[in-house]
Amino acid sequence: MGTTQLESVPEPKYWHLKTVLSEALDSEFTVGEILPNERDLAARFGVARATLRQALEQLELEGRLQRRRGVGTTVAPPRMGVAVGPGQRAWPGMPGDDWQPADCAFAVPPAAVAAALETGREEAVHTVRSTRTTRGQAVAAELLYVPQASVPELSAIDAPSGPARARAVLRELQRLEPEGHDSAVELGSARADDAKELDRLPGAPVLVVTTRYLAGGRTAALSVATYRADTCRLTFGDSGSVRIEDGPERRAS
Amino acid sequence: MGTTQLESVPEPKYWHLKTVLSEALDSEFTVGEILPNERDLAARFGVARATLRQALEQLELEGRLQRRRGVGTTVAPPRMGVAVGPGQRAWPGMPGDDWQPADCAFAVPPAAVAAALETGREEAVHTVRSTRTTRGQAVAAELLYVPQASVPELSAIDAPSGPARARAVLRELQRLEPEGHDSAVELGSARADDAKELDRLPGAPVLVVTTRYLAGGRTAALSVATYRADTCRLTFGDSGSVRIEDGPERRAS
Repeated sequence: MGTTQLESVPEPKYWHLKTVLSEALDSEFTVGEILPNERDLAARFGVARATLRQALEQLELEGRLQRRRGVGTTVAPPRMGVAVGPGQRAWPGMPGDDWQPADCAFAVPPAAVAAALETGREEAVHTVRSTRTTRGQAVAAELLYVPQASVPELSAIDAPSGPARARAVLRELQRLEPEGHDSAVELGSARADDAKELDRLPGAPVLVVTTRYLAGGRTAALSVATYRADTCRLTFGDSGSVRIEDGPERRAS
Repeated sequence: MGTTQLESVPEPKYWHLKTVLSEALDSEFTVGEILPNERDLAARFGVARATLRQALEQLELEGRLQRRRGVGTTVAPPRMGVAVGPGQRAWPGMPGDDWQPADCAFAVPPAAVAAALETGREEAVHTVRSTRTTRGQAVAAELLYVPQASVPELSAIDAPSGPARARAVLRELQRLEPEGHDSAVELGSARADDAKELDRLPGAPVLVVTTRYLAGGRTAALSVATYRADTCRLTFGDSGSVRIEDGPERRAS
């Protein structure tokens, strides 16, 4: 019914099954419900288990299903809209921000970060690790790289690491006059440390948002934030977040 | 060297291998070069082929490798920055736009699109299919849903479909005074028709950008655009695109 049929392209078997399963999820299952096991599902739909597994993988990629060890496959709730666009935050750690600084280190960043910050190859920078929580769920883990030149008055007397140090770095950064920021989103895989914080397995698909904070005519800080791709829809725009309950794949399929 | 070591989390074997392979890609291989076969690679790094395959999958997810049938595994070029943010285009199909309208249909959209457009459940809308080309490569395929109310003066005399019809719909849409737009990015899987246009296999991971175009106090059009996740980095911001050569995962690992 809802297809536009602009072109007819032969669809693989698992793709057709995915559509059928998707409709079954809508009509027969509720969010959080555990699906029957693979053998029963394959029998019900008259397909090989390999075909079923491919379809389940697609539905997981699209955020319709969640597969958790020891729980099984459950029907996922709709993805949460999480704002990441311009105007979202002038500086990281501003009041009202839903990020919690957790730790801070002083270390040489990866080479590409150093290049973006225009710091020397062996120059250590402050690295603030934060977690973003939306509706009680950890949705993103961030590493924020802040060169010493951006926080010249940061006292060395404070604790060298920990949340107090992280907050001190953010406080100093916020003294700069913001000149806007740029972001980029791309697909990535969760590093082991991020995966742990986000309650995912290492290597799970994530959306990586890189943000360059500008001040004084240069990049004053660089953030690399890893968002859960299964539960998040990243929103950005000039008039608030897009309020669409369903994911676009659900709409478009 | 470049790690921040904020926390020590045990890493699975394939993850360590991924890091080692990633360094080997940087130092020993050039973009486009074909990797040795899995057996040789597994032998060289002293790992099981299953471990190797997991590491290769991660590197593919991060855009470092491309696996193509009949070609093998090659070293991927850096991802392209593709602007999608606010200010990108007031209306689809404006001059200078890198989208090519390919076709147009008049059909009932999926239920969630109808809800967003506030059209009736069984109300047909104009559906313009376009392809976005950046540096000679198809990077995205879009379905743009335009309710009849947004293009009231569209002549019914034109061809009912095809690129000419698509351009006529876009031209009429552009007569409206734009009031901004909102976008959301999420992970999805390529539908068969999109996959074909993007030269990917159906089900390949894609970044789905949903954009709501506002005019006259309502949603005048809704776009669902599917971007290649392997080759694209979506940029948005208030001061141009983020010019970072390397992907963030490359930096962060």
